[in-house]
Amino acid sequence: MSFTNQLTAQSTPQNVRQAARQGVMSGPTSGLANGYVQVNLVILPESQASGFLRFCQANPKPCPLLGVSEPGARHCDALASDLDIAKDVPAYRIYRNGKMSETVPDVADIWRDDLVTFAIGCSFTFEHALIQAGLRVRHIDEARNVPMFKTSVPLTSAGGFGGNLVVSMRPFSAADAIRAIQITTRYPQVHGSPVHFGSPSLIGISDLQSPDYGDSVSIKEHEVPVFWACGVTPQQVLIDARVEFAITHSPGHMLVTDIPDSTLALF
Amino acid sequence: MSFTNQLTAQSTPQNVRQAARQGVMSGPTSGLANGYVQVNLVILPESQASGFLRFCQANPKPCPLLGVSEPGARHCDALASDLDIAKDVPAYRIYRNGKMSETVPDVADIWRDDLVTFAIGCSFTFEHALIQAGLRVRHIDEARNVPMFKTSVPLTSAGGFGGNLVVSMRPFSAADAIRAIQITTRYPQVHGSPVHFGSPSLIGISDLQSPDYGDSVSIKEHEVPVFWACGVTPQQVLIDARVEFAITHSPGHMLVTDIPDSTLALF
Repeated sequence: MSFTNQLTAQSTPQNVRQAARQGVMSGPTSGLANGYVQVNLVILPESQASGFLRFCQANPKPCPLLGVSEPGARHCDALASDLDIAKDVPAYRIYRNGKMSETVPDVADIWRDDLVTFAIGCSFTFEHALIQAGLRVRHIDEARNVPMFKTSVPLTSAGGFGGNLVVSMRPFSAADAIRAIQITTRYPQVHGSPVHFGSPSLIGISDLQSPDYGDSVSIKEHEVPVFWACGVTPQQVLIDARVEFAITHSPGHMLVTDIPDSTLALF
Repeated sequence: MSFTNQLTAQSTPQNVRQAARQGVMSGPTSGLANGYVQVNLVILPESQASGFLRFCQANPKPCPLLGVSEPGARHCDALASDLDIAKDVPAYRIYRNGKMSETVPDVADIWRDDLVTFAIGCSFTFEHALIQAGLRVRHIDEARNVPMFKTSVPLTSAGGFGGNLVVSMRPFSAADAIRAIQITTRYPQVHGSPVHFGSPSLIGISDLQSPDYGDSVSIKEHEVPVFWACGVTPQQVLIDARVEFAITHSPGHMLVTDIPDSTLALF
């Protein structure tokens, strides 16, 4: 039985996770199980987990924590009741000695009793809110990945981790940018309000058409680039810290949780 | 007994109104009775009041209504318990046949049984909130009036009134502009969130250093002009409508109400 062809925006989070768990779904999760929170995962040995937890708490805009597992646990009630952290993501990245070493469909065979899982909010949630408010999100309209950029904005160093912020960029008219600032302010657990708009050079970005991650998108006359803290930041931070061992989701291949997007709205 | 020298940021709203009522205070109210809402006043004969009310309700960003009096009443419980609308403003403007005809210290002798008073929110309230949040407001730092501009942005015509929006401008860095958008969003009854930022020409403003009302202020490198709907809009609208008779406060000489600024915050 194949789930892949059946998965749609109307699929339940359980459907998506079970398809990933059974190995019949290995693609990106954008557009699936709409209305439910998808999260970035960082999985680290307990020896580094407390330091990384301090780092996340010191940098809530790029690393908003939605859940942290107990050491060794493959479940996390804050995210879903029937979760298997080692299998429910369509694709995982494994890092060894500070380098990304491989992309795999599950991590059950390399799971360890000391692994702690961090679930970090993802901008998909606020993008749904922007679209529901009538705004157009360019990279979705152009069927691309959101453009992401390394910046010169320093993170707060903590727990042995540090580096510079990575941001995602979405272009808007000024009026829509004001509305987007209002809407994303309601969602601090998925990066919240923007960190910058306008001149890219002020945050160390030299060319908006050459993103460091993701794809470039068109920017129309009179549009302003608006920059949000990005969940790719912790992946860059793991590499910069030359961690001996870590697992993350593969970009775009998120863990789909049972948390309704709407429950993350502050007001 | 002179009140003028005694009035300060710590004065009560009652102190300021009584000083105006007794004719010993005729100056601007900026910086007096801090923490209390000051309002723009528009006073019209009942024959035009219902049209103007429809106009305000169709244009809530420039004309947020905090109170409307009964015809002929010189009190308005929504604003203050001991109010004398005909005397408690330090300076009034009288309009006859579509033109501003005179500025007077009170309007008791020309008061009419059919006059309806409209109290319209003023940006002083959100400026206090910006300053309390640690932002700097340039025109206050430079001891000038806020720069205001006629725009090409059409108002919604209603009740026989219409025209174009007047905006006030405050320059900020991008990060402070994002914060200012968040803070002013909390105060829809005092113009709320900005209507535009960035390129002035997109809303019909040709030169930021030549405001149509108020004073020019300096704009520093990397700062963005941010534009809010302005309470001067209805004064322009009255002139454009060539009203036979109207009274307003004189710009900067506001009515100080008993409403605490904090009660206007949405969240």
